[in-house]
Amino acid sequence: MLEELKKKVYEANMELQRERLVILTWGNVSEIVREKGLVIIKPSGVPYQELTASQMVVVDLEGKVVEGTLRPSVDTATHLILYKEFSEIGGVVHTHSAWATIWAQAQKPIPCVGGTHADHFFGKVPCTRLLTEKEIEGDFELETGKVIVETFRERDYRHVPAVLIDSHGPFTWGKDSHDAVHNSVVLEEVAKMAFYTLEINPSLTAMPEEMLKKRFFRKHGPGAYYGQQ
Amino acid sequence: MLEELKKKVYEANMELQRERLVILTWGNVSEIVREKGLVIIKPSGVPYQELTASQMVVVDLEGKVVEGTLRPSVDTATHLILYKEFSEIGGVVHTHSAWATIWAQAQKPIPCVGGTHADHFFGKVPCTRLLTEKEIEGDFELETGKVIVETFRERDYRHVPAVLIDSHGPFTWGKDSHDAVHNSVVLEEVAKMAFYTLEINPSLTAMPEEMLKKRFFRKHGPGAYYGQQ
Amino acid sequence: MLEELKKKVYEANMELQRERLVILTWGNVSEIVREKGLVIIKPSGVPYQELTASQMVVVDLEGKVVEGTLRPSVDTATHLILYKEFSEIGGVVHTHSAWATIWAQAQKPIPCVGGTHADHFFGKVPCTRLLTEKEIEGDFELETGKVIVETFRERDYRHVPAVLIDSHGPFTWGKDSHDAVHNSVVLEEVAKMAFYTLEINPSLTAMPEEMLKKRFFRKHGPGAYYGQQ
Amino acid sequence: MLEELKKKVYEANMELQRERLVILTWGNVSEIVREKGLVIIKPSGVPYQELTASQMVVVDLEGKVVEGTLRPSVDTATHLILYKEFSEIGGVVHTHSAWATIWAQAQKPIPCVGGTHADHFFGKVPCTRLLTEKEIEGDFELETGKVIVETFRERDYRHVPAVLIDSHGPFTWGKDSHDAVHNSVVLEEVAKMAFYTLEINPSLTAMPEEMLKKRFFRKHGPGAYYGQQ
Repeated sequence: MLEELKKKVYEANMELQRERLVILTWGNVSEIVREKGLVIIKPSGVPYQELTASQMVVVDLEGKVVEGTLRPSVDTATHLILYKEFSEIGGVVHTHSAWATIWAQAQKPIPCVGGTHADHFFGKVPCTRLLTEKEIEGDFELETGKVIVETFRERDYRHVPAVLIDSHGPFTWGKDSHDAVHNSVVLEEVAKMAFYTLEINPSLTAMPEEMLKKRFFRKHGPGAYYGQQ
Repeated sequence: MLEELKKKVYEANMELQRERLVILTWGNVSEIVREKGLVIIKPSGVPYQELTASQMVVVDLEGKVVEGTLRPSVDTATHLILYKEFSEIGGVVHTHSAWATIWAQAQKPIPCVGGTHADHFFGKVPCTRLLTEKEIEGDFELETGKVIVETFRERDYRHVPAVLIDSHGPFTWGKDSHDAVHNSVVLEEVAKMAFYTLEINPSLTAMPEEMLKKRFFRKHGPGAYYGQQ
Repeated sequence: MLEELKKKVYEANMELQRERLVILTWGNVSEIVREKGLVIIKPSGVPYQELTASQMVVVDLEGKVVEGTLRPSVDTATHLILYKEFSEIGGVVHTHSAWATIWAQAQKPIPCVGGTHADHFFGKVPCTRLLTEKEIEGDFELETGKVIVETFRERDYRHVPAVLIDSHGPFTWGKDSHDAVHNSVVLEEVAKMAFYTLEINPSLTAMPEEMLKKRFFRKHGPGAYYGQQ
Repeated sequence: MLEELKKKVYEANMELQRERLVILTWGNVSEIVREKGLVIIKPSGVPYQELTASQMVVVDLEGKVVEGTLRPSVDTATHLILYKEFSEIGGVVHTHSAWATIWAQAQKPIPCVGGTHADHFFGKVPCTRLLTEKEIEGDFELETGKVIVETFRERDYRHVPAVLIDSHGPFTWGKDSHDAVHNSVVLEEVAKMAFYTLEINPSLTAMPEEMLKKRFFRKHGPGAYYGQQ
């Protein structure tokens, strides 16, 4: 079942490798079929250079394997809660891409200090709070998902399709798996440039609100005029 | 019309990708045909890996599309004002190349602290002032061009063929599109080396005037003796 | 003799080059055949681009060449003492990979400040003490091995399969030569991310103990649930 | 004449590009034929991707072109004085390789803070003093050579085959052109690692003398035991 979509999710996974956002087994991409309540996701611990489309695992929204002989990604519970809570997203990506992970490990949000950031993320990319001891020792991956949702309680997940997990690394999301990978590519570049920008000018905090609005809405929403119609 | 030139501008665009100065859709190259008052430019929002020569857009100096089925780059108005004000240039490049963009985001000019810089840019590469709220909310891309021209009011654009747009990224120019790309390659390397040079020795500001003159005019102008005749 | 294993150790050596952990001649991989008391190791000073499987040298545990026309790696004595003292390891790797070497040169352990580190190394990667003048002028490579063993007197080498040699560079080990190379790949990435993490947030020291335990034992030991069964 | 050697010098030049030590036209390699008093050197300003073996220029020790239709490198006078003063060298390399250039621009020697450095350079890699206004405005490239010689008045050029030119970039030398390129590769890596080492531990100055001696003479001179006989 869903052979076309398995191939698509496989290709989105491999795109992470081509874009140098993953090494070894450090990442996973999924996509949801909302009308069937099924999610296709990378199997756990399979190195990217050995991955095949037929290894993709199909799970339902409770995480039960519906098809596939391998275990799904250990982060499946995190993906599933994002699909449940962020109703308009179609794809989710997790990586340990170096620059986004560095900010996550530093337990700091990525401030919006440039146009490239503002073109894609409407303001800073937030970092979750540290999990409590109880959350860590409980259902760790589910709690990771819950703390992302908590972080976006006062934010619009459609305007900032990325988050940093404290001491861990980034998740991104998008319309589908390829769009979520695209957001991972952007996040990594933006994370790198923010680091060096603040090295040169540590007094920066965020760009003026009018510039952020101009840049973001030039590319997103009804008034957008960037790109083709 | 202008098929040969479209191919040239396409190739100059692709050179940006080969030199790793652009990812995704983050850059554009144009070239002017001064005798016809026409400019060839990359279409807006087309990813570099999908770009073709036939997609290049021909616009007149008011920005009206003369040939092409796609919208021209969103930065077209900035390119056009540069062609109008800098009468000897033939090509313009815009990128979000990481190191030049980092200096632009930091709102700092790139100081001339080494021979590589002095060989190509006669002194620091300036950074524009931040646009006013009115300029941002008005004709944003045109105002971006105007603030470049303002920045060069007291400078010779032929001796420093590059500028940083505050909080955004670099523009470069040159005799034609390939020369402008060449200047983007140099700018990126110079921006990176200036950053680390100042990390090691923060007390540096600029090289001695006689060294700057020696190096720059060894390669440019009537007394140049670098390269072949 | 041991032709298959020579090929395996050769390939593990070449993997170092593919993963950009070595340039020139700066690294070596070995593997032990415990039942025969023999170790296969790279020859000394042979550039990676000229290396062949048949050049691999077979030595006994006293370092005597049993087969091969070339001298074994100058670091052979260090490898041998690790095999003698760490009874469960099957492969050893030494490189001058940039990031791990930088921490070693800085004479600092790599603190565990992120999940990627905790997934692979149970706590900080230690740095040996500086050798004494007598140790340096004596049997230098043997003393290097001894100081690694000293460093792990209070640590479990199976939980932290890596060490930094003061002012020099890293050694890693593993179940076999490929596993040891895998640990070198992880170490390099972890070393890089720790550096930048502390640049952003210098107040970090180590992640909470419960997070370290959760992450490490999710992937290692009887309760592990990462990867396939 | 000297067709074989032209090919060798051409290949040494191209090696600079493969090792990512040059971009555009920013470097040059030469080799001397001492018995004939002739030097083969890259032509001036020819981009590396267009370079051919037959373009190599043959000059005598006064810089007169003996064969070749192109102008020799603008840095020829610097190469020639090195051949005259350092009687045992056979090849010279100049690049603007990023990390070595960064130290040169910072006007600082590269301190010996690690084993990789000590394996190849016996102590710090010195930086020349800034040229005087008169030297700059006079025979600039010749004065650059003279200040290198001045810098090595109290040093053994055979033990430290590299120098940084203040505000400019590195020169290296060696037994022949390939050996000089090899030293450029080592210098670049050593320059990078020294930078980050001092970022982590700014209190470091140099490694203990006995460690430096052990490492350097393990690889060089009559008592060397690294590599093959």
